[in-house]
Amino acid sequence: MSTLSPDIQSTLAQQGIELPSWAFGNSGTRFRVWTTEGTPRDPREKIADAAQVNKFTGLAPSVALHIPWDKVDDYAALRSYAEDLGVKLGTINSNTFQDEDYKFGALTHENEAIRRKAIAHHLECIDIMDATGSRDLKIWLAEGSNYPGQTDMRARQDRLQDSLQQIYARLTGEQRIVLEYKFFEPSFYHTDVPDWGTSYVQVAALGEQAMVCLDTGHHAPGTNIEFIVMQLLRLGKLGSFDFNSRFYADDDLIVGAADPFQLFRILYEVIRGGGLNNPDVAFMLDQCHNIEAKIPGQIRSVLNVQEMTARALLLDHDALAAAQSANDVLGAQAVFMDAFYTDVRPALAEWRESRGLPADPMAAFAASGYQEKIESERVGGTQAGWGA
Amino acid sequence: MSTLSPDIQSTLAQQGIELPSWAFGNSGTRFRVWTTEGTPRDPREKIADAAQVNKFTGLAPSVALHIPWDKVDDYAALRSYAEDLGVKLGTINSNTFQDEDYKFGALTHENEAIRRKAIAHHLECIDIMDATGSRDLKIWLAEGSNYPGQTDMRARQDRLQDSLQQIYARLTGEQRIVLEYKFFEPSFYHTDVPDWGTSYVQVAALGEQAMVCLDTGHHAPGTNIEFIVMQLLRLGKLGSFDFNSRFYADDDLIVGAADPFQLFRILYEVIRGGGLNNPDVAFMLDQCHNIEAKIPGQIRSVLNVQEMTARALLLDHDALAAAQSANDVLGAQAVFMDAFYTDVRPALAEWRESRGLPADPMAAFAASGYQEKIESERVGGTQAGWGA
Amino acid sequence: MSTLSPDIQSTLAQQGIELPSWAFGNSGTRFRVWTTEGTPRDPREKIADAAQVNKFTGLAPSVALHIPWDKVDDYAALRSYAEDLGVKLGTINSNTFQDEDYKFGALTHENEAIRRKAIAHHLECIDIMDATGSRDLKIWLAEGSNYPGQTDMRARQDRLQDSLQQIYARLTGEQRIVLEYKFFEPSFYHTDVPDWGTSYVQVAALGEQAMVCLDTGHHAPGTNIEFIVMQLLRLGKLGSFDFNSRFYADDDLIVGAADPFQLFRILYEVIRGGGLNNPDVAFMLDQCHNIEAKIPGQIRSVLNVQEMTARALLLDHDALAAAQSANDVLGAQAVFMDAFYTDVRPALAEWRESRGLPADPMAAFAASGYQEKIESERVGGTQAGWGA
Amino acid sequence: MSTLSPDIQSTLAQQGIELPSWAFGNSGTRFRVWTTEGTPRDPREKIADAAQVNKFTGLAPSVALHIPWDKVDDYAALRSYAEDLGVKLGTINSNTFQDEDYKFGALTHENEAIRRKAIAHHLECIDIMDATGSRDLKIWLAEGSNYPGQTDMRARQDRLQDSLQQIYARLTGEQRIVLEYKFFEPSFYHTDVPDWGTSYVQVAALGEQAMVCLDTGHHAPGTNIEFIVMQLLRLGKLGSFDFNSRFYADDDLIVGAADPFQLFRILYEVIRGGGLNNPDVAFMLDQCHNIEAKIPGQIRSVLNVQEMTARALLLDHDALAAAQSANDVLGAQAVFMDAFYTDVRPALAEWRESRGLPADPMAAFAASGYQEKIESERVGGTQAGWGA
Repeated sequence: MSTLSPDIQSTLAQQGIELPSWAFGNSGTRFRVWTTEGTPRDPREKIADAAQVNKFTGLAPSVALHIPWDKVDDYAALRSYAEDLGVKLGTINSNTFQDEDYKFGALTHENEAIRRKAIAHHLECIDIMDATGSRDLKIWLAEGSNYPGQTDMRARQDRLQDSLQQIYARLTGEQRIVLEYKFFEPSFYHTDVPDWGTSYVQVAALGEQAMVCLDTGHHAPGTNIEFIVMQLLRLGKLGSFDFNSRFYADDDLIVGAADPFQLFRILYEVIRGGGLNNPDVAFMLDQCHNIEAKIPGQIRSVLNVQEMTARALLLDHDALAAAQSANDVLGAQAVFMDAFYTDVRPALAEWRESRGLPADPMAAFAASGYQEKIESERVGGTQAGWGA
Repeated sequence: MSTLSPDIQSTLAQQGIELPSWAFGNSGTRFRVWTTEGTPRDPREKIADAAQVNKFTGLAPSVALHIPWDKVDDYAALRSYAEDLGVKLGTINSNTFQDEDYKFGALTHENEAIRRKAIAHHLECIDIMDATGSRDLKIWLAEGSNYPGQTDMRARQDRLQDSLQQIYARLTGEQRIVLEYKFFEPSFYHTDVPDWGTSYVQVAALGEQAMVCLDTGHHAPGTNIEFIVMQLLRLGKLGSFDFNSRFYADDDLIVGAADPFQLFRILYEVIRGGGLNNPDVAFMLDQCHNIEAKIPGQIRSVLNVQEMTARALLLDHDALAAAQSANDVLGAQAVFMDAFYTDVRPALAEWRESRGLPADPMAAFAASGYQEKIESERVGGTQAGWGA
Repeated sequence: MSTLSPDIQSTLAQQGIELPSWAFGNSGTRFRVWTTEGTPRDPREKIADAAQVNKFTGLAPSVALHIPWDKVDDYAALRSYAEDLGVKLGTINSNTFQDEDYKFGALTHENEAIRRKAIAHHLECIDIMDATGSRDLKIWLAEGSNYPGQTDMRARQDRLQDSLQQIYARLTGEQRIVLEYKFFEPSFYHTDVPDWGTSYVQVAALGEQAMVCLDTGHHAPGTNIEFIVMQLLRLGKLGSFDFNSRFYADDDLIVGAADPFQLFRILYEVIRGGGLNNPDVAFMLDQCHNIEAKIPGQIRSVLNVQEMTARALLLDHDALAAAQSANDVLGAQAVFMDAFYTDVRPALAEWRESRGLPADPMAAFAASGYQEKIESERVGGTQAGWGA
Repeated sequence: MSTLSPDIQSTLAQQGIELPSWAFGNSGTRFRVWTTEGTPRDPREKIADAAQVNKFTGLAPSVALHIPWDKVDDYAALRSYAEDLGVKLGTINSNTFQDEDYKFGALTHENEAIRRKAIAHHLECIDIMDATGSRDLKIWLAEGSNYPGQTDMRARQDRLQDSLQQIYARLTGEQRIVLEYKFFEPSFYHTDVPDWGTSYVQVAALGEQAMVCLDTGHHAPGTNIEFIVMQLLRLGKLGSFDFNSRFYADDDLIVGAADPFQLFRILYEVIRGGGLNNPDVAFMLDQCHNIEAKIPGQIRSVLNVQEMTARALLLDHDALAAAQSANDVLGAQAVFMDAFYTDVRPALAEWRESRGLPADPMAAFAASGYQEKIESERVGGTQAGWGA
């Protein structure tokens, strides 16, 4: 059994992964959104579920909100509610993909009135951040076009920069914009921020409080994601991760489920580049639990990140560096794989118990009766989803 | 200007492309379904819109129905309604992806009761075919799993074959099953019929009345689709096309919009393999008009197929064969590209007029006032979409 | 530490993975073939190196030959030489991609004289099989075209079938053809056997002694390879594996190096479908060691297959079936991942020692002095590669 | 027939596309390099062949050289030789992928001595540029690694920047560095400059005389290349194109052969962004003619670029802008496609004749007897290829 050194234990103890409120609501594909009993009907119920993940893992100290899905009248009250449950309100996510006016764009729209409306939406999000104490405004730019010739891609870049500058100007001292990129979907010809390079040049033009958000499911097939992690850390512009996993497109599966070794490589580069437990680099989940149980799905996810972080921390950096310097390809690979193949689960279970957490958070949650409780209590009303 | 020979004119005159009723309803992505004024609210209104496409192009003599989206009490009446508008009812499409019971499968489900229900749904579809006079039952198998280990892929193949045999046994003399394959979506780890090979072995085990349906958007990146067209024609198992186009995944864009040259190559292989105007090979559209106008979107689509067919028909087969035999790579390519680059549009416009059709069907439809009429008349009710 | 049950130990003891002679020669990309000291200069030296892999692992009892690269005057003598070193001669690989006549095809060539020459080459390979005692003739069909229109894909399929029939007719009782498919390369528009479906229909038309060969690096991006393993086992047509791994195209990296979890999933389906230690399903490597040491590269590779097989054998099939039946997505996934994450290496080391093998074959080989010996002895001559 | 306006004629008259000397030598895949009669044996013979392309098309006024493949003793004499044939010497391409020392890197190598050697190679290239009058030093960075853990990707980025700075410092006033990126190959895990973002941040850190080179075959599957063209033009950092086309990987096929519509979209964005006939943006070919005739392959290629440029110039920008502003998706697409589908070939043939060029350059070259001449004259010696 691997033993976790005091250093590694201390590092793991600092790890926190933010949960998305929407992971607790229903989600699906264009073909069907399946519903499940006990699904939250409002932001408070989502936060209550998220707090369970933190309770059983100690790994999820904050919850991201999505506006307008999580709009409430009193954000200060929502913040107190969350804090009473042991979690903070985290990143505020804006939405430019559902309002009727945004059919052909929002922050990039040629129509000034619509673009001002989209900018105003983001300013409202910052108002909410002031109330919730959130640091980050995450902008996923769903905008784009479906057909070649449909729109002027170049003019949209310039309007995007102008819109972002207006939003940036509203940030207060500690607040940040993180700009997410995505290869495609919901647009099928061009997306206005399709790759890390575009996100980087857009945020670099804004200033120090603007960073790139890397969603692990938002790349072209075959992309070496850990290379991008390395590069953004080198440039000082990796603001946050949206973790999930994929086989094909933006599948939004549980992080580490599709390619565990890729997650290991990403976390290795995070550590290599000084991004672990670095306040500048936020760890978040962005997932869908279309067919599996949602709270356990989130528990499984944060554990996957923790377990893979532990493996990456076990890597023998001196041995690796020595083999790399000698161009000993197989030797270096052996050191690298040895960390990946080490089964850290028993040691993590012990360590969890030493900190007053259940050895097996999945089993402990299942035994807690919480799921049965919400299924019996949350009757009536409209289950939360990706709609209004 | 290219001249269309009498032979080519005669071939083009026989061409018919079936329209999907659902292309006239609303569609979208998991993020948003945009609505548009004038959208049909029931099967009759969808058929009325489809008839407009045929009226202005002479290319769309039939309409495919989707069950249960197009369920009506009296199919004979629906048939008469369609025929009065000059179109026939075509392929019946089953649906195994929206019933609550089908969350984990339908024709492949481990639970016998659910599997029997799914089989019964297909038998009902064949009952409808009897009433509508439809020949083909198209089965797109949306079933699969999201996580490795979630299900037993092998047992599902065997159950699928058993289910298909039960459905096949119900077919009457002229009726057929066409089994569609799809690379992924809505499942993200495995799909039960992911490729042409699986569709082929499943239908080959059924008998002569079972064929493969090739949807041009359902392949892995980089797949040479015309090779599959060639192979299925060679095997006598190409039952139908679902035409559309894509840049990334199953984008369901207008056919020919993303890669016109690919459409040319496909139609060349159709002609080469004897699949054009062959009753065994049905031409259908399967598209979404998420952001563009729907009726004009369908008109544009059938015109794209017609124009590319005309180009492929212009190809000088003798010159091509001679260059191929001489392994004259550039010579053969030149003959091939010459057909693709020939602008057939003026000649087609003339030919349309000679047949009593508008030279420019897009302009003629726009000038007809039909769109304004349905926008003013179709007020109230629920617009048709992919739901119940 | 995991304990390997007597059943698992017995299963592992039967495992054998065939090595490719060409893995011990030089290889590279179109840009450069790097040379290394000690590289074999003839088939005997390749076999001697392969025997080392078997000596230190007990896992590699046979060596595949490539004709003409491994042509010798006396195959009976070569066979004795190999057997004296403890290994057998295995699969014979034909070559239709290097002779000047094959620039535009071989078994598919329109020119009858060239096609007869290619058929004769395969008949000669079967003669060699008679002499070496080999069972399998592996045909990787490198043939295809680079430009649309360059050639008649359909006619080539028919000629291919005819050629294969002529070769098949020459097989003796126990001999087999295994037909490999490949997505692309060295042809860049079409390949004559690009996918499992084409290989399947070609070999199914031949008879029971013709099977499909699945190379793990020969698929489109995102392809679910274990699904194909499942399907071919179900159809009784999985004849052999060519193991390697890839990030992008046919990278021919060490098996398990790019995506260990994919290798696990493949081996799980092999076991599920009865393909493990089944004489009908040959396990082979087909790799390039462009920059890493070749003999250790092969040792690492067979160990990767063994370790992942052990993990897959540890899977709790009863627990998995129970969770699958209950549609407990997370429960089934947990059972699946538990096997993958179990570190079998210490138990395998113990077990190896119990069988008289070194606990750490990589270290044992490095300590053996063999590499130093061949580097000093193999001076002069022409190092073996992919050329004549 | 389309008529080319005086403006378009004038624009086309200015177009020049640089040819790569290596396109006239032999090339192939890792499996085989086919040879052809008449292949050049030295830089002069390559330049003579390139001059033929210019003679028959008027489109190819310069030839790029590759060092060391095109090393000569007297570059001034080579320059005169070229100029006597009517062409200039163009871009100098460095080579860091074939020297034995560069097995594990060159400008990124951890070993200082090797890195200094690689830098010195580039300084020598600039010396050559001084002699040839070349403006651009093109650096394609083939460096990378094959296995995760093999090397320290981050340290390599920093060393790369340092190396580039040393090279940049040597540039004289008008000279430039253009840094090419490539998704993969010859490295199969990571490449040191894999995407436009990395190339951009590396050259942006150097200064105004460093630009990005975009090779159309060097992207992940599905990448929207014209978006990158737009972005780099917007950033003022598009230094040059390496044109070619691909179906799968870096296939290096004739530009426009695989996806003509993509080439149209790229040229549309070039025009939109002011990159046509802009001295800052060099047009070059980088292709392989593995199986087709080389000189006609290059003629076909420059004609493809010219024809697609003419189509893009025909686009009705006012109509497009109007439809775009109205969010008339189908209307905008129609304007866009109308330009693409217009057959400009007859008008270009006329225009060529009016300028004293053959109407059909392919036929004119074939009739010229040049190919027969070089086949009879170039006997003996070693045909040029990608080797020394």
